[in-house]
Amino acid sequence: MTIDKLLKGLKAWDPRAIGRAISLVENGDDSAEAILSSLDEDLISEATILGITGPPGAGKSTLTNGIISQLRQSRKRIGIIAIDPSSPISGGAILGDRIRMMQHATDQDVVMRSMATRGRLGGLCATAGAAVRIMASCGCSNIIIETVGVGQSEMDIIRLADITLLVLAPGLGDDIQAMKAGLLEVADILVVNKADCKGADILAMDLEAVTRKGSATPTPVSMTVATESKGIAELLDQIEKVDSEHRDSGERQKRRRGAHNQEVLDWCLEILRPRLLAEITKKGLPLLGDPRLKAKKILEEQ
Amino acid sequence: MTIDKLLKGLKAWDPRAIGRAISLVENGDDSAEAILSSLDEDLISEATILGITGPPGAGKSTLTNGIISQLRQSRKRIGIIAIDPSSPISGGAILGDRIRMMQHATDQDVVMRSMATRGRLGGLCATAGAAVRIMASCGCSNIIIETVGVGQSEMDIIRLADITLLVLAPGLGDDIQAMKAGLLEVADILVVNKADCKGADILAMDLEAVTRKGSATPTPVSMTVATESKGIAELLDQIEKVDSEHRDSGERQKRRRGAHNQEVLDWCLEILRPRLLAEITKKGLPLLGDPRLKAKKILEEQ
Repeated sequence: MTIDKLLKGLKAWDPRAIGRAISLVENGDDSAEAILSSLDEDLISEATILGITGPPGAGKSTLTNGIISQLRQSRKRIGIIAIDPSSPISGGAILGDRIRMMQHATDQDVVMRSMATRGRLGGLCATAGAAVRIMASCGCSNIIIETVGVGQSEMDIIRLADITLLVLAPGLGDDIQAMKAGLLEVADILVVNKADCKGADILAMDLEAVTRKGSATPTPVSMTVATESKGIAELLDQIEKVDSEHRDSGERQKRRRGAHNQEVLDWCLEILRPRLLAEITKKGLPLLGDPRLKAKKILEEQ
Repeated sequence: MTIDKLLKGLKAWDPRAIGRAISLVENGDDSAEAILSSLDEDLISEATILGITGPPGAGKSTLTNGIISQLRQSRKRIGIIAIDPSSPISGGAILGDRIRMMQHATDQDVVMRSMATRGRLGGLCATAGAAVRIMASCGCSNIIIETVGVGQSEMDIIRLADITLLVLAPGLGDDIQAMKAGLLEVADILVVNKADCKGADILAMDLEAVTRKGSATPTPVSMTVATESKGIAELLDQIEKVDSEHRDSGERQKRRRGAHNQEVLDWCLEILRPRLLAEITKKGLPLLGDPRLKAKKILEEQ
């Protein structure tokens, strides 16, 4: 595909062209600049970027599916970026399977993309940010970023979103509780999924108590049973409400600004990283001695 | 504590001095250079760095406890670095509780340290590497790095280890399976914990089949019941066997070299990151346009 044809494909909603453009940017192809400079900034600024995070087993994928179905009723075009916590080698295939199983895989108005956090040399925030921009520019009015919110890179990703849902479910055990604590801080809406299961009401009450303690404006808690599409319409109303508040208060713009600066920083580091590693490897530094001092020296020499 | 007193404390196995030294390096204190340059390189090179990773609920902490008990029988000094996937604010306290509950918390010959992956601006590999060096230099013959191996930063951390255990358990669900796939690639020994539970044998057979398929030398699989200290002695024999093979084949030295270069790189980025972010923020770049191009321009201007 020539670059001209590709750019035309992006304007004409060709899902294959969208996928190809994201790959080219991800791989640092020479055409990345042409692609990223051709985008429609108004559409990017207007799109809603929704982050969905939560521990394994909370039912994020099913909930995402439900949200897509609901949004598709108003014929909106949707982009999905699934952050894959496993490796690009074996994990990619597994996530691929998961995507194929999704009911919207054959819907021409839904574009999906998976990105691995592992086996990459950083820069996930940069490439995910680019994917968001490409999808929005092509006409996705909603872009969903789904991630198992655990590591630093996943958390950086969530900062790309205008609104973040933290999906939890009863009975996920102790380690999960520890994860939750960090995740609570980034959530705009807490979703208790599997709300028909034992312990769901207690979990919701716990969450309400926790968020009420720390803040004047407690984080709203929504109950869903994603497998039965229960509570999804109410959740979308809640999302719209928070989004509208964020637009009015300037919070949305503030987040976009933060995400933008983070993205530029991430691209800087992405560009510097291979250069620096090549230099470090070439030097064949002795293993002995303080790595921090060596790093300082390398930077001073530049 | 003056820096002289601190350095003396490090040589005299003062756990409080060790903790303080790690904090100073972690916070980028001016004394970091003096601390890191004072370390005993022979002890660092001789110590065994063990990585323990696996999904939540596999029983990593209990297994780590069991390994420490076993190693303490031969009066070895041990360092533990627990990578906390939650935030430094709320998560730190939760991990703190977990550490206090550990039976070795009052053992003066065991030093423990928790590090958060979240809420930090990168550089976890650099600071964890420094903590490993400090602990080893002070006389820890074994250093255990425990992490929920999910994101990129946790995977980078695991690369600091000479030998990595992947701890799994039966019945952890589908999302876990996806994680496992990526983790399998980094494991030197697979541990099926909760070996007395239903499904443990099938899991072990599955794992053996998977590792036999990809490689001429399949990854060994160990069975443990960490809560009853079963299989721990055999696991340590297995670790020693793999370690000795790695020493003979040059694999150990190769990994140390890779970890060292990664650490130097990480320090470079750690030093550059705040400088770059300050510059990007100061510029007040317009939100419109290609972040990648902006990054390139910023780097060219430097």
